[in-house]
Amino acid sequence: MITLYDMSLSGNCHKVRLLLSLLALPYQIQAVDLRGGEQRGPAHLQRNPFGQVPVLDDDGVIIRDSQAILVYLAKRYGGEPWWPDDAYQLAQIAAWLSTAANEVANGPAKLRLHHKFGSPIDKAAAEQTADKVLGIIDRHLQSQDWLVGDHVSIADVAVYPYLALAPEGDLDIGAYANIITWFQRIRALPGYMAMPGMRRP
Amino acid sequence: MITLYDMSLSGNCHKVRLLLSLLALPYQIQAVDLRGGEQRGPAHLQRNPFGQVPVLDDDGVIIRDSQAILVYLAKRYGGEPWWPDDAYQLAQIAAWLSTAANEVANGPAKLRLHHKFGSPIDKAAAEQTADKVLGIIDRHLQSQDWLVGDHVSIADVAVYPYLALAPEGDLDIGAYANIITWFQRIRALPGYMAMPGMRRP
Repeated sequence: MITLYDMSLSGNCHKVRLLLSLLALPYQIQAVDLRGGEQRGPAHLQRNPFGQVPVLDDDGVIIRDSQAILVYLAKRYGGEPWWPDDAYQLAQIAAWLSTAANEVANGPAKLRLHHKFGSPIDKAAAEQTADKVLGIIDRHLQSQDWLVGDHVSIADVAVYPYLALAPEGDLDIGAYANIITWFQRIRALPGYMAMPGMRRP
Repeated sequence: MITLYDMSLSGNCHKVRLLLSLLALPYQIQAVDLRGGEQRGPAHLQRNPFGQVPVLDDDGVIIRDSQAILVYLAKRYGGEPWWPDDAYQLAQIAAWLSTAANEVANGPAKLRLHHKFGSPIDKAAAEQTADKVLGIIDRHLQSQDWLVGDHVSIADVAVYPYLALAPEGDLDIGAYANIITWFQRIRALPGYMAMPGMRRP
């Protein structure tokens, strides 16, 4: 049985719930009480020394990091369309996973942490990172429907949640027409699951 | 022929040169003049809209992002030891690639940018990130020789350069005995290539 150590409002957790749902995999949720500091307790640090959610437990196989969990699920359960065998396609997916781990996390996700949860951040740096990455993604989606190749991949799943949540970080994404069309494409996928409280731009 | 768009002092470029050398792959270097702003010119932005190095060109196949280039080379040229077929091993590698793209980039690498090249940063935040990730990696290496499994992988190659360059960011890593032993293990690999000017802690 798959157990997801989860926090319902986390966009990183939503990446995993979204892929589990797109793959129609059964799983159970184990909520981690981030406000109560459970992520810094010994039981959770044993699962993930970084003290973060999500963590996946697949019958005792423990995976930390949202991007890594997407890789695991795609390779283990997704088959060829979700985990291509081609080095160029894999590398393009890996590049967007890096973008999700760095620019998306340090731009839109950090601004949301600040505006929604009051975390102190370097706001100017986060806004600059957000503007840059949103512009690049929007131009990239001008000539293609999905981030990599001609079908959905874990690159889309990794990048989507914090872009869709950008309005909660006081980011106006109305000008990024290609991103908004891509949102609609993702939301039309069989098995698509919205995040609780996600506003539609 | 493989061409690496490169900057000799970049730790991200060193990741790629190191793997190319470990895999004994021939390649040519195309230096990008970062001080002169070449990375923001149209030719380079065409190769990488993020305006960064490294970029790999393998007979016209263009890959951006150092982690993605490691994935490409490992899958395309490395064979099973460098690119495992097992979902759990791949996921562990992916988790460390995320750590390289996020915590290592925003901790040790950012401090080096500041101390060596004068970039303005949020120093307290970068130091906190560096301390956390160095501690986690040191404890992880207490019970194993390599970051993933029982042999070197692209996880080690992705994380190594900016940890080895940490002294240039005014970080004292003398207390991290397991990291230093791991440095020695990496430096003993056939094909190991040092970075120009890298100080040995």
